[in-house]
Amino acid sequence: MSDHVYKSVELTGSSETSIEEAVQNALTKASESIQNMQWFQVTETRGHIVDGAVGHWQVSLKVGFTLE
Amino acid sequence: MSDHVYKSVELTGSSETSIEEAVQNALTKASESIQNMQWFQVTETRGHIVDGAVGHWQVSLKVGFTLE
Amino acid sequence: MSDHVYKSVELTGSSETSIEEAVQNALTKASESIQNMQWFQVTETRGHIVDGAVGHWQVSLKVGFTLE
Amino acid sequence: MSDHVYKSVELTGSSETSIEEAVQNALTKASESIQNMQWFQVTETRGHIVDGAVGHWQVSLKVGFTLE
Amino acid sequence: MSDHVYKSVELTGSSETSIEEAVQNALTKASESIQNMQWFQVTETRGHIVDGAVGHWQVSLKVGFTLE
Amino acid sequence: MSDHVYKSVELTGSSETSIEEAVQNALTKASESIQNMQWFQVTETRGHIVDGAVGHWQVSLKVGFTLE
Amino acid sequence: MSDHVYKSVELTGSSETSIEEAVQNALTKASESIQNMQWFQVTETRGHIVDGAVGHWQVSLKVGFTLE
Amino acid sequence: MSDHVYKSVELTGSSETSIEEAVQNALTKASESIQNMQWFQVTETRGHIVDGAVGHWQVSLKVGFTLE
Amino acid sequence: MSDHVYKSVELTGSSETSIEEAVQNALTKASESIQNMQWFQVTETRGHIVDGAVGHWQVSLKVGFTLE
Amino acid sequence: MSDHVYKSVELTGSSETSIEEAVQNALTKASESIQNMQWFQVTETRGHIVDGAVGHWQVSLKVGFTLE
Amino acid sequence: MSDHVYKSVELTGSSETSIEEAVQNALTKASESIQNMQWFQVTETRGHIVDGAVGHWQVSLKVGFTLE
Amino acid sequence: MSDHVYKSVELTGSSETSIEEAVQNALTKASESIQNMQWFQVTETRGHIVDGAVGHWQVSLKVGFTLE
Repeated sequence: MSDHVYKSVELTGSSETSIEEAVQNALTKASESIQNMQWFQVTETRGHIVDGAVGHWQVSLKVGFTLE
Repeated sequence: MSDHVYKSVELTGSSETSIEEAVQNALTKASESIQNMQWFQVTETRGHIVDGAVGHWQVSLKVGFTLE
Repeated sequence: MSDHVYKSVELTGSSETSIEEAVQNALTKASESIQNMQWFQVTETRGHIVDGAVGHWQVSLKVGFTLE
Repeated sequence: MSDHVYKSVELTGSSETSIEEAVQNALTKASESIQNMQWFQVTETRGHIVDGAVGHWQVSLKVGFTLE
Repeated sequence: MSDHVYKSVELTGSSETSIEEAVQNALTKASESIQNMQWFQVTETRGHIVDGAVGHWQVSLKVGFTLE
Repeated sequence: MSDHVYKSVELTGSSETSIEEAVQNALTKASESIQNMQWFQVTETRGHIVDGAVGHWQVSLKVGFTLE
Repeated sequence: MSDHVYKSVELTGSSETSIEEAVQNALTKASESIQNMQWFQVTETRGHIVDGAVGHWQVSLKVGFTLE
Repeated sequence: MSDHVYKSVELTGSSETSIEEAVQNALTKASESIQNMQWFQVTETRGHIVDGAVGHWQVSLKVGFTLE
Repeated sequence: MSDHVYKSVELTGSSETSIEEAVQNALTKASESIQNMQWFQVTETRGHIVDGAVGHWQVSLKVGFTLE
Repeated sequence: MSDHVYKSVELTGSSETSIEEAVQNALTKASESIQNMQWFQVTETRGHIVDGAVGHWQVSLKVGFTLE
Repeated sequence: MSDHVYKSVELTGSSETSIEEAVQNALTKASESIQNMQWFQVTETRGHIVDGAVGHWQVSLKVGFTLE
Repeated sequence: MSDHVYKSVELTGSSETSIEEAVQNALTKASESIQNMQWFQVTETRGHIVDGAVGHWQVSLKVGFTLE
């Protein structure tokens, strides 16, 4: 692992249900264009409010992947 | 949207079950006295421990609403 | 409560399912050697990615306990 | 000044023109309900983008006022 | 305690004598209008200087209280 | 809006005139290659000094756009 | 001093009287089990409120000691 | 440029008009006593409020200059 | 006040007794060479430990003064 | 320089030898696909431990380059 | 790896020569009492000055290890 | 040591070779005008890139010295 170089990008995924699903939705979308994703780190957890309830969660994350 | 002014307040909600429910509990209580809540941002996730297990979650959040 | 002294340690728990379970797994392991755990604070939420999906969550937390 | 107590609130003002006008718009709205505002501190400068240009600025600020 | 919702506000108290008295002065003033204050956290310690000496301390704090 | 995924990139624009123009210059350049830019957040405001005056402003910003 | 290795732990002490006494109470308790304590750094100053007054101060600190 | 040593100092300038002018006012004053100023970074943007409007802006900045 | 320029410097004072005295000791020493000191902000509170007790407090502060 | 727009990306390089080599390894890899790299800033220094010794260093950095 | 629980401790190592050696010295000392150390993160780089030169480096790091 | 007052200044040194040498170069230059330097803390590590390689390191540090 010691001779790899990683790049990280910042994404925001959303979900009406949970923080976990918002993260997974971001990864699913990103995997269409990014190969070799290795790890993520949650950087911000926000959301929109509709009629006094959580409308959807918006979770930002850094995603690291190997530069081939 | 460009001519609105927002105010944000800081709340802490709790739940025995999940981070998501703690946020929703804070919003439900706040909606009794605050109109036009638009967004929230989680600022801290804590909890109390009872007998080596999570007793309840305590989640702090900023909540933004339109100043009428 | 005013004459207690607390110590806090930093742990990282993991789970394939949720942030909440990762925290509970850390507490369950820590309770084997630490008595009187009182509170925790989440300090970082990360995870590993396997085939474009969350492989497991890794949640770091400070845990405070009473020094007897 | 040494025997005053201040309270601070967090506001977000917006403007299509400038950061300065967004701050002033927040203060103008707040002065309808808050007396004795003394100082402010900018905490965040954001904006919305429309067709590749700044649509409007959104500037968040803490505003301090004397508690009578 | 798990079903309470808390709100926190930010205050600044001052004292010519000590940090502790500046905090207490803020709490005394706030208790005229806020019920059920539970905890505080010091967020900033500043002061004014008069003739090369501390003229008065200005201590900012978050104060949390139960939303009834 | 709840099913979108956003990516954010970090840019630095410059201007001899104002912070606002430096931000707009960064957006104008970025819009040549990035579609669907939605929001920005200023992360740093710096500048170069020439003969004791502001030579030009350098403003860094995160820009978020929808991942199609 | 250049060939020592230090470890630091995080403690929270409390006092009904002052920030200084809360720190000293934490050190007194810690000195029962830790040898060679060299320095501390205050990381957080909080407190509990009883009837609108400071009930007790809770001061968190890092304490560094020599690893023998 | 690689063999220079820089020193940076922290200044606060003010202006009734704009953030940019407050920065320039600080630089103009500093250039009376500091040679070879190269760059600045804005560290805080505050202001005083008079009758519900911005009375003047107070902008703090780090200024770097070459040590001859 | 709007046409002044301020400079701030960082000092560390110490005291065997209290945080307040450590700040005052720093101001007393600084006033020998700095005129027109206006305000201070505490940036760090540390101390040395002797035989399990606070040997002395070391408090760092920014001190702002008017540039004449 | 005042009319350039810069983009910055975040990379992580590794080395069994030194922090400096880990940074250079990241730049060497990135220069295969990025033109006109101008500056970098170290954002995190980590490493893996093998048998009680540093196995390799992992250094994260922001790299800025001119947008042509 | 997903079912491990990690604990992290904070250490400070020193060296007259380099940052890298100061980290290794901390790990060498810690490995006498801690098993299964996996990773570290540098949290602070300081040093003492003797006669205008670096006397020794003092590097603080978090070290993570598996809780068996 | 308890009755000393320290002042700290912020410097940036550079080197084509290493972080350590950049720090030493800053101290060597500063020692021409500052007496009694006691300690330093690295606050930022940056560098310039020339042809895809580190051109030189630029390391910023706070340097503390005794006020006589």
